[in-house]
Amino acid sequence: MMEPLKTHLTFGGLTQFWKHDSRETKTEMKFSTFTPPGGKPKGALIWLSGLTCTDENFITKAGAQQFLAKHNLMVVCPDTSPRGLNLPGEHDAYDFGSGAGFYVNATTDGYRDHYRMYAYVANELYDLVKSKFGVSRIAISGHSMGGHGAMTIGLREPQKFTSVSAFSPIVNPAGVPWGEKAFTGYFGADRAKWNEHDTVELIKAGKRHPAPLLVDQGTKDEFLEKQLVTDRLIAACKEAGQPLTANYRDGYDHSYYFIQSFIQSHVEFHASRM
Amino acid sequence: MMEPLKTHLTFGGLTQFWKHDSRETKTEMKFSTFTPPGGKPKGALIWLSGLTCTDENFITKAGAQQFLAKHNLMVVCPDTSPRGLNLPGEHDAYDFGSGAGFYVNATTDGYRDHYRMYAYVANELYDLVKSKFGVSRIAISGHSMGGHGAMTIGLREPQKFTSVSAFSPIVNPAGVPWGEKAFTGYFGADRAKWNEHDTVELIKAGKRHPAPLLVDQGTKDEFLEKQLVTDRLIAACKEAGQPLTANYRDGYDHSYYFIQSFIQSHVEFHASRM
Repeated sequence: MMEPLKTHLTFGGLTQFWKHDSRETKTEMKFSTFTPPGGKPKGALIWLSGLTCTDENFITKAGAQQFLAKHNLMVVCPDTSPRGLNLPGEHDAYDFGSGAGFYVNATTDGYRDHYRMYAYVANELYDLVKSKFGVSRIAISGHSMGGHGAMTIGLREPQKFTSVSAFSPIVNPAGVPWGEKAFTGYFGADRAKWNEHDTVELIKAGKRHPAPLLVDQGTKDEFLEKQLVTDRLIAACKEAGQPLTANYRDGYDHSYYFIQSFIQSHVEFHASRM
Repeated sequence: MMEPLKTHLTFGGLTQFWKHDSRETKTEMKFSTFTPPGGKPKGALIWLSGLTCTDENFITKAGAQQFLAKHNLMVVCPDTSPRGLNLPGEHDAYDFGSGAGFYVNATTDGYRDHYRMYAYVANELYDLVKSKFGVSRIAISGHSMGGHGAMTIGLREPQKFTSVSAFSPIVNPAGVPWGEKAFTGYFGADRAKWNEHDTVELIKAGKRHPAPLLVDQGTKDEFLEKQLVTDRLIAACKEAGQPLTANYRDGYDHSYYFIQSFIQSHVEFHASRM
């Protein structure tokens, strides 16, 4: 039984917070939604958040509701990991385990039973959005670790997601410290598994999305050089012929102040393809 | 020395967080600002937040930056009380002491030395905004306890504030539980002092603002009936001839989702009078 925990009228639509029992994570999972006025959205955007975030960050801080209302879209924002567990090392760091699910299906002991955020987003939540909210067209976007999640899921399931965008995504986790740490924890040394969850590697391996990818990246992002390495995405897309609009935004950082400044263009991008 | 703790480019302007040593509270005080692109705002809005809030709530959740940028206004958001003290009872409840300064100059033992949020906002912060940010026109607004602060300060200092607005204000604190508790703590039984910090009582006593007051109030606000009592403001303004635009908003609650839905109209209201 899925019931709203809280409901707030917002720009004539509804901001809501939900919990449900997930078959994929075998935990209770939370997510937030905004549904536009009228209750008949023409499509949904699944938004995946970054490290340390929950279902609350985007819906509270991105200022997206006004644009979603205008374009008659809903948004669905899941939490970033299972909660309420106590797996080995799960709560020891901000960049692995709780708050850091990386949108993968883990294979290591303990984690394989619950850390199935790929399947949770791409299948369970996807189906729930279609059945409970009555939308047929679904796009995907996200920020940082969530931008990585949006692009890897969108490239692997192009028939399910009408368009894919990201803010400040981790485009090559298999080649940067955040991803090396998390993937070691979720997959061990199995590099083939790593590459299944790496945007640059997926594109090199032939994965494509029929719509152009849209990426916004701040030039003053404190993680750009070491963790995000956007240029590797640009090079891989160019080499592979995957259409990509990559906007470097002068002076912007990694925060939700950056996201709120450009979220209108992402909402319009997804709306125009539904 | 006033230095920014953090700076985030936002809609081409700057969201910033500051701290400084306050002469009024004799503590370090924090505030946040947004300054529009170009660095020459035509005016400033001082925003006062509600119970439990800090300098972060409005600047993070209201979605005001895009409208402030468009109208070339800055906003300044102080914290809601002094911090770092340990006065008797100061940290025992959400509605008195820390996070609950009620924008008064307290007279009770201990509090009189630090809880001078009226003087801090109306004089010290006001002067700082003029001198450090080079603006000459300043308006004032706020939410709940901060709506109370904006209206009481604006009515008592009409020559200093070009216009006054509020979301979900506590209009008659001397006659509702939140105010009775706080004013007892800040003033004891001295009812004359209570009335100096009560919007309805100030209007009854002849205080006026030359611009119409603007108030937005959600009809599903969980505090409307017991704590906010907006109708008492409407009656007092009508009786006194103080122009007031009071908008009851069907179905909206007390949250920042309500504020973000209507902040554009408040920014436009203040901008049009500068």
